[in-house]
Amino acid sequence: MNRGGSNLKKLKTQAFQDFYPDELSHCYGCGRLNEQGHQLKSFWEGEESVAHFLPKPYHTAIPGFVYGGLIASLLDCHGTGTAAAAAYRSEGRGMDTLPPHRFVTAGLHVSYLRPTPIGVMLEIRGKVKEIKGRKVVVTATLSANGDVCAEGEIVAVEMPESFLKTNAATS
Amino acid sequence: MNRGGSNLKKLKTQAFQDFYPDELSHCYGCGRLNEQGHQLKSFWEGEESVAHFLPKPYHTAIPGFVYGGLIASLLDCHGTGTAAAAAYRSEGRGMDTLPPHRFVTAGLHVSYLRPTPIGVMLEIRGKVKEIKGRKVVVTATLSANGDVCAEGEIVAVEMPESFLKTNAATS
Repeated sequence: MNRGGSNLKKLKTQAFQDFYPDELSHCYGCGRLNEQGHQLKSFWEGEESVAHFLPKPYHTAIPGFVYGGLIASLLDCHGTGTAAAAAYRSEGRGMDTLPPHRFVTAGLHVSYLRPTPIGVMLEIRGKVKEIKGRKVVVTATLSANGDVCAEGEIVAVEMPESFLKTNAATS
Repeated sequence: MNRGGSNLKKLKTQAFQDFYPDELSHCYGCGRLNEQGHQLKSFWEGEESVAHFLPKPYHTAIPGFVYGGLIASLLDCHGTGTAAAAAYRSEGRGMDTLPPHRFVTAGLHVSYLRPTPIGVMLEIRGKVKEIKGRKVVVTATLSANGDVCAEGEIVAVEMPESFLKTNAATS
């Protein structure tokens, strides 16, 4: 019983990305094994998913503001992470169970609403808009100091087998 | 005459981003003064704009492929660069003339068509879809080994004065 409780606690405190298998943990945006990368961590918070990220001082657009490519990257990785977590949740099982769900981005849309200040913790929040077959659509916001600076929509699809096969052939 | 010819040659061999004033040259994606950044360089090639970029080995999605955030960033910076160059060109004047055109991204859409292999030079090509008032819409492709791996559309708008004022206040 204690052991089960301990595992449950571990599951709740681990990020979505912590459950990705090793071969899928090298993403520059969110892979826990990519030492140079952003290592974004996403969690459930009720019906929403949330992640936090503090940009480096050199992640600038113009001095004082975050460059758009990083914002796109954070929304993208949080979106695919949320898609994977949502797929497991819709089946009533944990992210540590088999068979695995592995998502890639098919489409990404970002609206930049206002300049994103640098030097403060950014909050990325996601909501599942649609789950249908192999596709999950996630909407997300990126906020700084409580202001929504960007909105995104991520269309995530289950990773084709060919992608993994090609990877196996090249890595 | 010689001097004029020399300047003309210089103009043709300089990238769009080389004409950005110093205060707008700190973008992580394309700023020539951002030593940690990608320093993307875009040029006209007839009616299209073109840029090339070789990702670092750690810019991975899964091993062997480029992560989507970098692809979004390259399309974004090439798009705003193309928008600025197109604005000058539509007025029949060089990027070294005044008044300056300064663009930011209002909207970015990326369709990921196939995995982008890492370890090869990527080519980003842009076309001006629309110029209207303060807005320029650019469509772009990102290719590897001759295959289009991603398509993007960038809605660029002239940078609001408030953006520059806020920047002046914070930097």
